[in-house]
Amino acid sequence: MKDRNSEIKVYPPYFSPGLKEERIVLSHGAGGLKMHRLIKGVFLKYFGNKSLARLEDAAVVGWEGEVLCFTTDSYVVKPLFFPGGDIGKLSVCGTVNDLAVMGAEPRFISLSFVLREGLRLMTLSRICQSIKESAKKAGVEIVTGDTKVIEGGQGEEIYINTSGIGVRKKAVKLGAELVRAGDVILINGGIGEHEATVALARGDYRLKSRLRSDCAPLNRLIAAVLSCGGVRLMRDPTRGGLATTLNEFADQSDLGFVIEEERLLVARAVKGVAELLGLDPVYMANEGKVVVVCAKNRAEAVLKAMRRFPEGRRARLIGAVVKAPAGVWLKTRLGSLRRLLMLEGEQLPRIC
Amino acid sequence: MKDRNSEIKVYPPYFSPGLKEERIVLSHGAGGLKMHRLIKGVFLKYFGNKSLARLEDAAVVGWEGEVLCFTTDSYVVKPLFFPGGDIGKLSVCGTVNDLAVMGAEPRFISLSFVLREGLRLMTLSRICQSIKESAKKAGVEIVTGDTKVIEGGQGEEIYINTSGIGVRKKAVKLGAELVRAGDVILINGGIGEHEATVALARGDYRLKSRLRSDCAPLNRLIAAVLSCGGVRLMRDPTRGGLATTLNEFADQSDLGFVIEEERLLVARAVKGVAELLGLDPVYMANEGKVVVVCAKNRAEAVLKAMRRFPEGRRARLIGAVVKAPAGVWLKTRLGSLRRLLMLEGEQLPRIC
Repeated sequence: MKDRNSEIKVYPPYFSPGLKEERIVLSHGAGGLKMHRLIKGVFLKYFGNKSLARLEDAAVVGWEGEVLCFTTDSYVVKPLFFPGGDIGKLSVCGTVNDLAVMGAEPRFISLSFVLREGLRLMTLSRICQSIKESAKKAGVEIVTGDTKVIEGGQGEEIYINTSGIGVRKKAVKLGAELVRAGDVILINGGIGEHEATVALARGDYRLKSRLRSDCAPLNRLIAAVLSCGGVRLMRDPTRGGLATTLNEFADQSDLGFVIEEERLLVARAVKGVAELLGLDPVYMANEGKVVVVCAKNRAEAVLKAMRRFPEGRRARLIGAVVKAPAGVWLKTRLGSLRRLLMLEGEQLPRIC
Repeated sequence: MKDRNSEIKVYPPYFSPGLKEERIVLSHGAGGLKMHRLIKGVFLKYFGNKSLARLEDAAVVGWEGEVLCFTTDSYVVKPLFFPGGDIGKLSVCGTVNDLAVMGAEPRFISLSFVLREGLRLMTLSRICQSIKESAKKAGVEIVTGDTKVIEGGQGEEIYINTSGIGVRKKAVKLGAELVRAGDVILINGGIGEHEATVALARGDYRLKSRLRSDCAPLNRLIAAVLSCGGVRLMRDPTRGGLATTLNEFADQSDLGFVIEEERLLVARAVKGVAELLGLDPVYMANEGKVVVVCAKNRAEAVLKAMRRFPEGRRARLIGAVVKAPAGVWLKTRLGSLRRLLMLEGEQLPRIC
């Protein structure tokens, strides 16, 4: 088992001439092991530099007098609209949150559309309305954009890229290298709601449910968290879910991250969808959650700060960092430790 | 005729409830009139702010101590590889050039891939190699990225978004408001090469030709141009070509832009493709050209600066700015004036 996980540390060559015919499959985009191999074996091979090699949610680029953060994300979710959000809201929140978890205040967003011929202008306008509202809520300005149209397919299709610039105070220090054994792991609520909602909305399951995506801009909540002090590292557990985010932390710190099953909040409806579709909530995508690793003595202050926001009402401590064993572990209700590896392949149905 | 062109100044509502079923067509992405209507009627309606409403190639965002430029562009070209370039080179050069024409020194690039299932990893790697080389040539660093995979279609498909950050000296002032009657219009070489090349590469024309796309990063050439002084406004004439770029200038300045047919350089092979496919070179896309409007007394210095670079060897003066008639005009070889309107619909075949 150790081998499978350490494999992702193998750098180029990712493929040999004999693998010339290897093709992209959906799981290359699923946030798991295959995607990490693609990033390290292809992208870092070609583009490796100090910013990129950190594999964080945004780049911190040097700037005279200020620290800038810069991030990019493309959104391809289907269906375009789902309970609690749509591709437009998602494309603002995702990029805002990527900047916020880097400790930056999100300021400027770019917006680039790839539209498939046949998309209704009314659909585009609804998405734009949603982008506008989300940008307002997050306090970011959309300052530049681009539009391309591709030849027609079936159904309505739109892909959105948002890139963002944020500014970070010089005093803010965050990173896997700051994490220590004894630190605690916090999250601002339940897990799996986004993926469960979208999976249901995609399907022909004829289920009725009150499930809503947790999609939300978290920059204000995160700024409050940061002001408590003692925060080592934050990330939003999107594709690949909580377990993948913790694996990234473990990979970058060589420490152990132990979460306790009974402390995790999984809504009844999420559990239902997970069981129905054979998904594991710890690998399910979230779009309004942040995982915070902080000093134990700051945990209460951070949780209190989170709970002041609607998106943080159900904030909780879910685990702790240990020196050994390294990797990510789930302490089950029965007290045993189950290793949570980086997702191999993808969970089905795919939703982002 | 005046009406058709002035129509694009009509702001929202772009469509009424009766047009609810209006759909996106390819020409919404062709850089012409339909695209401008979409931008003004939908995007500016929802996202309008001072930066965006300028409709320039990059946003200039306020920053303490420095001026930042921020731009975004998605690339959907087919075929992925063509003589003189590929989608990777294009995605770096396009974004670098968008920053450079704003007077900025390009610094940081983000890179976001949307890959269609079935893409060969070898294809992706060739594209990455090309991105790497172009970024090196332009002197920009790729600092952040993202990858999504969408479900399989036919053939190999990849869409790339690059966003970029550049820094501009505070002393640099550029904009349509600085243009005066009597200024001159310069370009760093022949027109239509990119579109002619890609159109040929797409087609089943069985033509052999030495055509190559002009795709190139122009930031160093443009920096040299800028240092000559007297530059009012620059833009890279990509989708929609020279005529569309000049229409954007005319739209923003309410002045007349007159270019002379006999001063334009159109390679014999470009003419051939244009005649074969019924295209007009002044509307054909370029990826390594910059249109410069500058004071008449700086024209010689600017041309000399351009000619020091391989991409500027055939730089030339092509026209002048007049007070009236407003709009864009082509002075033909016979001496008559032909109005060049914003492209209605699209030229076929579409190439970007």
